[in-house]
Parts: sequence; structure tokens; C-alpha cells
Amino acid sequence: MAHVSVTGTGRTAFGRRSESIKALLVEASRQALTAAGRPKIDAVFVGNFLGGALSQQEILGAILANELGLGPIPAMKVEGACASGGIAFRQAYQLIKAGEYNAVLVAGVEKMTNVDTETVTNAINAAMDAESNESATGLTFPGYFGAVANRYIHEYGAQRKHLAMVALKNRMYAQANPIAQFQKAISLEDVLTARPVTDPLRLLDCSPISDGAAAVVLQKSESGVRVLSSGQASGTPLMQEVGNLLRIEATHRAAQQAYAQAGLGPEDVDAVELHDCFSITELIAIEELGFADRGKGWEAVEQGLTQHGGNVPVNTSGGLLSKGHPIGATGIAQIVQIAEQLNGIACNQVDGARIGLAQNLGGTGAYSVVHLFAKEGS
Amino acid sequence: MAHVSVTGTGRTAFGRRSESIKALLVEASRQALTAAGRPKIDAVFVGNFLGGALSQQEILGAILANELGLGPIPAMKVEGACASGGIAFRQAYQLIKAGEYNAVLVAGVEKMTNVDTETVTNAINAAMDAESNESATGLTFPGYFGAVANRYIHEYGAQRKHLAMVALKNRMYAQANPIAQFQKAISLEDVLTARPVTDPLRLLDCSPISDGAAAVVLQKSESGVRVLSSGQASGTPLMQEVGNLLRIEATHRAAQQAYAQAGLGPEDVDAVELHDCFSITELIAIEELGFADRGKGWEAVEQGLTQHGGNVPVNTSGGLLSKGHPIGATGIAQIVQIAEQLNGIACNQVDGARIGLAQNLGGTGAYSVVHLFAKEGS
Repeated sequence: MAHVSVTGTGRTAFGRRSESIKALLVEASRQALTAAGRPKIDAVFVGNFLGGALSQQEILGAILANELGLGPIPAMKVEGACASGGIAFRQAYQLIKAGEYNAVLVAGVEKMTNVDTETVTNAINAAMDAESNESATGLTFPGYFGAVANRYIHEYGAQRKHLAMVALKNRMYAQANPIAQFQKAISLEDVLTARPVTDPLRLLDCSPISDGAAAVVLQKSESGVRVLSSGQASGTPLMQEVGNLLRIEATHRAAQQAYAQAGLGPEDVDAVELHDCFSITELIAIEELGFADRGKGWEAVEQGLTQHGGNVPVNTSGGLLSKGHPIGATGIAQIVQIAEQLNGIACNQVDGARIGLAQNLGGTGAYSVVHLFAKEGS
Repeated sequence: MAHVSVTGTGRTAFGRRSESIKALLVEASRQALTAAGRPKIDAVFVGNFLGGALSQQEILGAILANELGLGPIPAMKVEGACASGGIAFRQAYQLIKAGEYNAVLVAGVEKMTNVDTETVTNAINAAMDAESNESATGLTFPGYFGAVANRYIHEYGAQRKHLAMVALKNRMYAQANPIAQFQKAISLEDVLTARPVTDPLRLLDCSPISDGAAAVVLQKSESGVRVLSSGQASGTPLMQEVGNLLRIEATHRAAQQAYAQAGLGPEDVDAVELHDCFSITELIAIEELGFADRGKGWEAVEQGLTQHGGNVPVNTSGGLLSKGHPIGATGIAQIVQIAEQLNGIACNQVDGARIGLAQNLGGTGAYSVVHLFAKEGS
């Protein structure tokens, strides 16, 4: 039986872009189709979160299929907040595996810099429960993860500098990524003294507002980067219902599903892209994904275990923190980076990488999606 | 092999509701779960279009799973404008058929009356191409379908009264539907003299602004209403690219797929719910679905062929025109009505109904989805 494989990838530069949501989506998708050799596409899945709220543009699936001349094929948009891209990819993977489609274009996009900061902050809060007292009292995503960071420091004996080390590592990687939003070198001191956002998080601990798109062609094919498995889980969108602020259980569950399906464990993974919407979120994610013991993520970072020369390089693209975080595009962009690692052509290439993992988070833990990939021929 | 079957249904009253988007979604979903006997649910798919724009609420999949205590299962929202519900249902059907899930809750919802008319009209226009000169020059959905209606009258020799007869039939059916937004009897004269919207369409030719939700439980099961097949196609979202304004080709293609998969034709269908967002849209849909020859839809309506005593009753729920059109809920509500017809418990029951068809449209023809269903044991 032929595998389900990523046969082509594309992505725009991330950051403040003059192009529209449609133009970004088309740019990344054209790249992916060309890279895949323009196979006949059977369906289009688009991951997107804020198109309606910020660009007054929905029906992105039909718009993309029409703009690319793909014919009257099934198309749709999938929304799962910041996990929209990863969830869209999973749908396509499951349906190809099932034999419903042979080739699917999966693209993710977000246009966020066309409105003011207050508008975009309010729009992002649609990834919380808008009816809860939490939103009403002014909780935002930086607020939530600031509280998590304080709790992490208090509970596990980490220091502020360990958060900063995450941001520093990801910026180091971003310097080699031509599509990254932030490519300028920074120091640990820069992170520690940046403008405070929500204590203890400072500006460089937070992923930015970004425009951008990414796309992959997924096919029933022996060639290409093989998708080994897919895990997805949900969690409460309410802070007051989280039993332990230091856990993102949806990530743990999604990872367990993906590892079990593939018959692999964290020790088999050579390259990871994970959802570092904040520096603290990377520390928790490496623990939930099994790359560090619980409460020891900060030690792994301090010891350099999550970069080249350590156990497993994490976010060699620069991550959300420095590559940028155009929300709907993020889950697909992570997969593009992993595909490039397994094809041996990535920025910050990991020598001999054979197995890759991508983890995409939505809300404060409402959704998490984990995919495992193998190098062609592995 | 067990079939994929609708084992439980639910829907709220449609119209102006005081409840929030979440409350409506939960109300319909609880009904469906109870009706299905509370099986273990493996995933949640929500069809919704305007949650982000009008209620600042996305992540409806996770919110619903959490609110109902369904556990940390995969969840997501699917968007395809007015076809969001039908597309969400199709995803669930395909994935159960593939063996990925055993039981899925599919719900659709929209909250539209909480904002003023201008805001909701602008938000609905996100189902066009926002960058095109068409939106920029003020084209709206009533504008588009008004032009189609004029062309239909000009080309096929229909009269204004034939549009009105569609509205009249659907209102007649809505009088027996306790959840319908408009249950008051009207006359042909009422439709013909209602306030003009976009010539030749008048107020009662247009579906209303509505709040509401609908839900179904879909399971791998021998019992329940069996899903026979699923078709989906796309079309251009641009008026200037439509070769013939009197065609909605996506509907024709989706229907051809569904008929072919099921080995059935229009002559086998006993009850139809189709997407009558405007009276003219029902005339075109009955032609595209094969219930009338092209250009003869108006004659079929005039002869009473699309109601009890004719060939096949269409929109026995009252349709979008009179039952209401809470956008994301519509595709699911259509399936609820068909399930009730095949279970023999519908308002305006069709005696001995064995095969049903539901057709859901998104945009002016950007998406169309057609599902065929059979009575349990057929």
C-alpha cells in the first residue's frame, strides 16, 4: 500500500506583508503545487482563524481552488484557533489514508497586520470562551501564559533566564531562515530587559503579530516525506477548569496517540517543530512531548539538549517566537520545516534526520495536534 | 459491514433567540445525544460561519466537547459559508466510513440577530470574494439572486408569480413546523406585494436573518437513518466568471456524485430539503438536482409537482425561506428534517418515504453538498 506523503511544500515570507490574505494563500500554494510536480488535486483544505473577523473573507477553500484553476473539487476551511493548520492537515491525511482522495492541497494563512493592535487582540480572544467570566475580566493569552510562567518558576525552581534561553535559541535558528519575521541577532540580556508584557513574560518571550501563508501537497505516494501518524485531542478552554496550570494535557494525549500509531517514542525523533507561542509554552511542550521529564524542561534548555549538539533540535525554523505566527499558517509552516529537515534541505539542517515531529496548539490548550513524519525510504 | 447512520437528531427553535451561540449549540446537541441513547462520541464537528465576526467566538468544537463533557476528543469547526453544516456532516460521514471514528456529533449553529442589519449584511458578504470589484461595487446576495431571477424570467418565460409560489409552498409547510421562524399563513398576494428587496425579489422571496442550531449523531450502526452517499463540488465565487447565471453547476456535480455512489436517480427520491435561500434558488436547485428539466422548474412548481400530491415534496420543513436560515445550522437542520421524514415522524410527513435528499449551498455557488439517505431497513 502506498504511503501518504508530503510531495511539495511552499511558504511565504512571514511578517508585515503588503499582500492580501488571498494573495498570500495563493503564493504559498503555487509553490507547493509546483514543487509537487502539479499533480491532479482532489480536494482543498484551508486552515485559517481570523479571515472573517479581520479581512471580511471566508470561503477561502473555494477561493483558492478557483484562483488556482483546480476545478470544481471539494474545498473547505477548517478552524481550530492557532491549531487550524494542523487540524486541516490531519483531515487531509485521514481522508487520503481512507482512500477518499489521492492528492490534497492543504494550505494555512493569516492576515493580521492590517488592523490595529486592540482589534487583533480582541479577535484573538475568540480562541477563549467569550461568555466566560475569564474573558470578561480581561484575561488574554499573554495573561494566561504569564500566570503559567510564574507558576512554573515557583513550582520547579526555574529562573527567568530559562525562559529567555528559549527565545534566544529560537532567534539563533531564525537567523538562518530567510522567511523568518525576526532575523536579527539578540543577546540573553536583550530578552531579559525587553519591554514587560505580562510578568514574567517580556516582549521577546511572546510570538508576534504576523502575516503569512504555508502550503503542502499531500498524496498517496511512495515518494516524498511520509506521514507516519496523527494524534489530536481537546482540553478545556477555561483557566478555572485546568487542574494543573503546568500541564497541557491535550498535547500529551495527542503525542501519545501519534507515538503509539507509529510505534515510536520521543527518543526516535530527530527534529521537532513545536508550538512556542510563548517561551514558557515551549518548556511545557517539550515535557508533554516526552523530550524532558516533567518539571525539567528548563534544565534541558539550560543544558542545550533542545538544540544542535544536544538530544533533539527544537524549532530549527525559529519557531513561532522568531519565525512569526500567522495563526492559520503556523501548523502548516511547522510541517514544511519538518519536511525540509527530512529532505535534507532545511535551514539549520539536522544531519541525518530521519524522523520528525510537528505539534500545533489551539487556544490555551483547547486543541493540540501531533504528527510524526519519516524521511523518504525510511 | 455496518452502515453509517443518523442515530439521533436535535434542533432549537429558529428565529430571534435570546440565547448565545454556545447555548444554542449545546441545546441542539444535547437533544441529539439523548435521542441517540448517549453513545460514546469519538469526535465533534461544528458547522459555523459567523461566530468570529458576530459573537467573537471561535473554537466552537472544543467549547461544545467541553460543555457536554465528551472528554478530550478531536474537535473542530468547518466553514463553507452557508454550506458549513453540510460540509461538516460530510467530513464526519467520510471519517466514520473510513473507520477513523465510530460515532461523531455534528452540530451547526449561527447567532445573527445580536447585531444590526448592516453589520450582518457586511459579515455575510465574507462569502463572496472581498477583493473583487463585485463586492466593492456593492453586490450582495439578494443583488446576485435578483439578477438571476430576472434572467430566469427573461430566458424561460416564467413569471413573477412562479417565484411567489415557491415562497407560498414553503410557508404552507412551515405552518406545521413548530421550530419554524415564520408560521403565519400568507397569500400569493402577500408575497407579490411585499416590500421590494432587489427586483424582482421581495421580502418574502428572501430567507431571513435567524438564530438557531441543529445537531445529529452519526454512527457506524445498523439502526437509524442510513447515509447512502455524499457529493461535494465547488464553483467560482465571482459573478463575472459564471458562464450561465441560470446554472449552479456545483449543485449539479454534487448531485451527480451522490446519485452515482448510491446507484439512484432523482426518480427514487421521496423527500427533499434543498437550499432555498431565495425563491429563485429553489427553482434552479430543483433543475440541477434533476427534479425538473432545465428551464422547467417554474412549471413544476405551478403544477404542484414539488409538494404533497405531486412528484416529490420539497422543503417540507418550510425551507430556509420560512423555517429560517441560521447559516451554520442550515445544512444540519435539512438533514434532521430528512431523518424525521425517513423515520415517519416529520411535520408534513410524506407517506411511505424511503429515500431522502439534502442539498446545501455556500456562497452564490462556491460550494454545494448533496447527501442521500435511506429509511432504516431499506
